[in-house]
Amino acid sequence: MTGSHAAASFTADDYRARMDRAARAAAGAGLAGLLVAPGPDLVWLTGYTPPADTERLTLLVLAPDRDPVLVVPALEAPDARNATGASALTLHDWTDGKDPYAATAALLGASGRFGISDNAWAMHLLALQRTLPGTSYASLTEALPMLRAVKDAAELDLVAAAGAAADAAFEEIRDVRFGGRRESEVAADLAGLLRRFGHSQVDFTIVASGPNGANPHHEVGDRVIEDGDMVVLDFGGLKDGYGSDTSRTVHVGEPTDEERRVHDLVREAQEAGFRAVRPGAACQDVDRAARAVIAGAGYGEYFIHRTGHGIGVTTHEPPYMIEGEEQPLVPGMCFSVEPGVYLPGRFGVRIEDIVTVTEDGGRRFNGTTRELVVVE
Amino acid sequence: MTGSHAAASFTADDYRARMDRAARAAAGAGLAGLLVAPGPDLVWLTGYTPPADTERLTLLVLAPDRDPVLVVPALEAPDARNATGASALTLHDWTDGKDPYAATAALLGASGRFGISDNAWAMHLLALQRTLPGTSYASLTEALPMLRAVKDAAELDLVAAAGAAADAAFEEIRDVRFGGRRESEVAADLAGLLRRFGHSQVDFTIVASGPNGANPHHEVGDRVIEDGDMVVLDFGGLKDGYGSDTSRTVHVGEPTDEERRVHDLVREAQEAGFRAVRPGAACQDVDRAARAVIAGAGYGEYFIHRTGHGIGVTTHEPPYMIEGEEQPLVPGMCFSVEPGVYLPGRFGVRIEDIVTVTEDGGRRFNGTTRELVVVE
Repeated sequence: MTGSHAAASFTADDYRARMDRAARAAAGAGLAGLLVAPGPDLVWLTGYTPPADTERLTLLVLAPDRDPVLVVPALEAPDARNATGASALTLHDWTDGKDPYAATAALLGASGRFGISDNAWAMHLLALQRTLPGTSYASLTEALPMLRAVKDAAELDLVAAAGAAADAAFEEIRDVRFGGRRESEVAADLAGLLRRFGHSQVDFTIVASGPNGANPHHEVGDRVIEDGDMVVLDFGGLKDGYGSDTSRTVHVGEPTDEERRVHDLVREAQEAGFRAVRPGAACQDVDRAARAVIAGAGYGEYFIHRTGHGIGVTTHEPPYMIEGEEQPLVPGMCFSVEPGVYLPGRFGVRIEDIVTVTEDGGRRFNGTTRELVVVE
Repeated sequence: MTGSHAAASFTADDYRARMDRAARAAAGAGLAGLLVAPGPDLVWLTGYTPPADTERLTLLVLAPDRDPVLVVPALEAPDARNATGASALTLHDWTDGKDPYAATAALLGASGRFGISDNAWAMHLLALQRTLPGTSYASLTEALPMLRAVKDAAELDLVAAAGAAADAAFEEIRDVRFGGRRESEVAADLAGLLRRFGHSQVDFTIVASGPNGANPHHEVGDRVIEDGDMVVLDFGGLKDGYGSDTSRTVHVGEPTDEERRVHDLVREAQEAGFRAVRPGAACQDVDRAARAVIAGAGYGEYFIHRTGHGIGVTTHEPPYMIEGEEQPLVPGMCFSVEPGVYLPGRFGVRIEDIVTVTEDGGRRFNGTTRELVVVE
């Protein structure tokens, strides 16, 4: 999986506080404990990312009434010991050939309901279910969806800095040549710029030109960008352990009236979604606000994805701005607002900013122009 | 996620044949079907790797009596349609807000035992268990551990080519300067060489000098390599979709008698493990043969990991060369033989070749010298 890197700026006390908060949240949700797998949950709680995500079990066990225990392969114990959060937990290592599930089971007890990381391996979950038939499990997104959703001041600074770096990349990419070059070449430029502006990990550099823009998740291809193309740019990754994710749609040469009209429509929808961001509003209100603008103009059927997703130590996490999500917005939440219109076989437009909830509304972490930028 | 890349050399018919073989193997194991998640299983069966490994469900459903169905998010359907194996299966896409588990459940039926990819997300497994309480699940490593283990001729050529590329990287790295440079600098050289010799993905470039060598999974650090250091090099990744993984231990300047003796011991153990490779021998026999040499010399307690792991579209998969694994070796299996000795606080030695089983014994896919190489 995409390795999340711990931000250097957090201390063992920060991780201790997060683990304590998580254990208390688990108790509040009626859970006997949390089982945290390598990935965003583990790096957020401990600062630890294993050298590789393999079949060898690494699992953090958090229980309301117990000190945190990290089950790790003996091979990787030295790396785990070097994690910033290691001093806030007990390492419980196991050697090849031993049964790591029996060791974990001893920490859980014979019954109770546990939250487990969404991305924990099915192989590990099945082994725990078999070892402890009296236990039951719920994914963290189901049991504690908002565990990582509300960012503290230090985290907000990091998400803001990642957004500023992505903006700096856009300010440079708009000046490169698009016409006559392959999508993959422009994407390589984008990846280089993200790294140059401090990203340690580039998760995606979507360059979707002309008809490719009508496929919202088209990454890059060998298509040669032509004069007259709309080009959707959607790029992001991790800087100092926190995510960036922004989209702008540019046009090679002068756009047609229809292209301008569709771009204006998406810009209005993005603005409407942004304006719907305030404490207490529901996630689905943000989706509805953006969608209403596009549907009102008769393009509803061409907006084929949710309006946004949370961002933090990953570039994709709760909360989701989608119909049916009634979770109230809370100051400190960070997520994308990214409506789009996709005209099959012709072109697509998407405009995306990362937004955070403040006491009196939304604040954008992306500040580049949302007007249609004409490129060469 | 670490993207496994499909080898360009396989056709839709190859993937159709693999899916058919897998469905028959499932039936033979008494399974109602297989649930294949993004990652090595999916890329091996279809050539498809989703643009990203997210919370959105992508799942291949294989059943003995049915055509293969790939459940994909509508957003990613265009990418899935472009996969080489797409013409050998039916796409079943779902849009944001719809329940992908209900759609999947309709393909499974209300009861039966299913094999599921080891690395499928716990979140998805839990949702299926809740949607279909009458079903049960087993990880593929448990239910069909050898599904991808026996490579065909085309696959063997690709594993051999990846090994040859890794060997070419070693032949060049042995000539770079080690003394006075950081582990991380030598690791960067290694990664560059692997890419130069055709690797599309570098999974690990372990450079573990002096005492760091006593931590088998130490990746790289800022430690400056000194004259007199033993340095464990363990590196690999994917070339044309198939894995390389080789280890050599080099010495900066003249080694001591003890260093030579320990290196000779590990070399003899690796040779013994290799000689134990033949059709019908058990995986654990390879581990026992290598371990006996090291234990016989009184270093048993310092060989703290299994002797090997399978390799294919990943750099880590069944079969495992470990005590208790009675799986018989079959011609076409590919795995590492990598004994090591780790002296805490002092140094480590590991020697690793990728080996395949042939009708009359083992064949190495790595051919660089296993003598102790002195570097500068």
